[in-house]
Amino acid sequence: MNLSRLFVEADLSAGVEVSLSETQAHYLRHVVRREEGARLSLFNGRDGEWSATLSLRGKRDAAARVGACLRAQEAEPDLWLCFAPIKRARIDFIAEKATELGVAVLQPVLTRHTAVERVNVERLRANAIEAAEQTERLTVPDVREPIDLGRLLDRWPPERRLLMCDETGGGPPIAEALAGLDDASRTSPWAIVIGPEGGFAQSELAALHRMSNVTAVGLGPRILRADTAALAALACWQALLGDWRKPTPRLVNDYRTSRTVT
Amino acid sequence: MNLSRLFVEADLSAGVEVSLSETQAHYLRHVVRREEGARLSLFNGRDGEWSATLSLRGKRDAAARVGACLRAQEAEPDLWLCFAPIKRARIDFIAEKATELGVAVLQPVLTRHTAVERVNVERLRANAIEAAEQTERLTVPDVREPIDLGRLLDRWPPERRLLMCDETGGGPPIAEALAGLDDASRTSPWAIVIGPEGGFAQSELAALHRMSNVTAVGLGPRILRADTAALAALACWQALLGDWRKPTPRLVNDYRTSRTVT
Repeated sequence: MNLSRLFVEADLSAGVEVSLSETQAHYLRHVVRREEGARLSLFNGRDGEWSATLSLRGKRDAAARVGACLRAQEAEPDLWLCFAPIKRARIDFIAEKATELGVAVLQPVLTRHTAVERVNVERLRANAIEAAEQTERLTVPDVREPIDLGRLLDRWPPERRLLMCDETGGGPPIAEALAGLDDASRTSPWAIVIGPEGGFAQSELAALHRMSNVTAVGLGPRILRADTAALAALACWQALLGDWRKPTPRLVNDYRTSRTVT
Repeated sequence: MNLSRLFVEADLSAGVEVSLSETQAHYLRHVVRREEGARLSLFNGRDGEWSATLSLRGKRDAAARVGACLRAQEAEPDLWLCFAPIKRARIDFIAEKATELGVAVLQPVLTRHTAVERVNVERLRANAIEAAEQTERLTVPDVREPIDLGRLLDRWPPERRLLMCDETGGGPPIAEALAGLDDASRTSPWAIVIGPEGGFAQSELAALHRMSNVTAVGLGPRILRADTAALAALACWQALLGDWRKPTPRLVNDYRTSRTVT
């Protein structure tokens, strides 16, 4: 666990001083007990990752003095996760795990059988930021406002393929379906679409199957909860089409802040 | 969600009456408010799945009268998950998700950097039973007592392959590594081995790499929490070597208690 890697909004470049939020200051002082001058690393989703040192000011404030650039900016694969909101612990879990598994966009989708209508987007964002800090991403997923499934499909970008986990069964196995794609489909932007615990309504299933660029898949003989299906589909997509096809970078130090591909 | 599917210890055959536990009786009466004669389905990990009707007796007791056999017994793939215990919410999550993802055995493993030494095996078992009820399995994973990694490897069954998620990096991509296996390896029994949050010690990594039947893999460029790595490896294994390679059975009724492969 990397306890000193922080997401900030500010621009990052050598020599600047960046104010930390009250939550970050509290965390560094009182939870992980960092002292003046402690080593940090910072990222903002745009400028790569930078070393920094902690500067404690007054009782509550803290700032970070930015040093050298540790890693150049890089993007995650262009993968959305479109999921129906579920109850609190499980939706927090989706935000955390999907961030670790490298999604670019988290899109809550309201469906006819969605049990939970209100989504605390700010809380999801906080979960995504914390997970991005831990998982060594250089970006934080874009957590979007909830949208009705019909409206989402009406304005669907034509070049983005949908991987639809069809809980009614009959979908071809996910590995077979993804292996059978042509090169253009393999390298296009993607979205994984997961229904609510109650399943998609018949009309919603029909609308999804009518999309020109949909790949419906099955995830085996057991009934999966929505959060499990989301995770499992993300892992399979990354392994078969995403950046897990590249060798894993080797860790080069204890702080896991700097990596090199061997 | 299937609210009326219960795991029982008793033998199942047409016409027998099976006593339900106090917890099950309470759940059926007071949580999901089932009445005398309500339809249930029962499984015990040996005799397949059976329809049954609820019989309420006295204030607390309940029993089930067994009717017809709905599905013949079938086994999950012979896959173990060997994982270092982690803190409570995350270990509960591993038990639930690994059950949904079809493991046969959950084996807690104590390593040098394992942060949590005590494992509540009974609680893990209860989580696994609940998940097996929901996920329509006919078995409950065997939740074993914790064991030291060294002792586990000393008595390792020679025919069982290890899929080792190597968090130090340098492992080949999981899809490439699994695709490159010969037929004998693809169809042998397997175990997925996941280290603790603190990582395996150098001596433990060396011992794992010395095993004759180990496949070390990488899970992409992001640092994954232990629970995420466990889930992701399970999903990829099922998709590439396990029972997700078969078409998904189609649901045939609302209760999801009876399925037929199309």
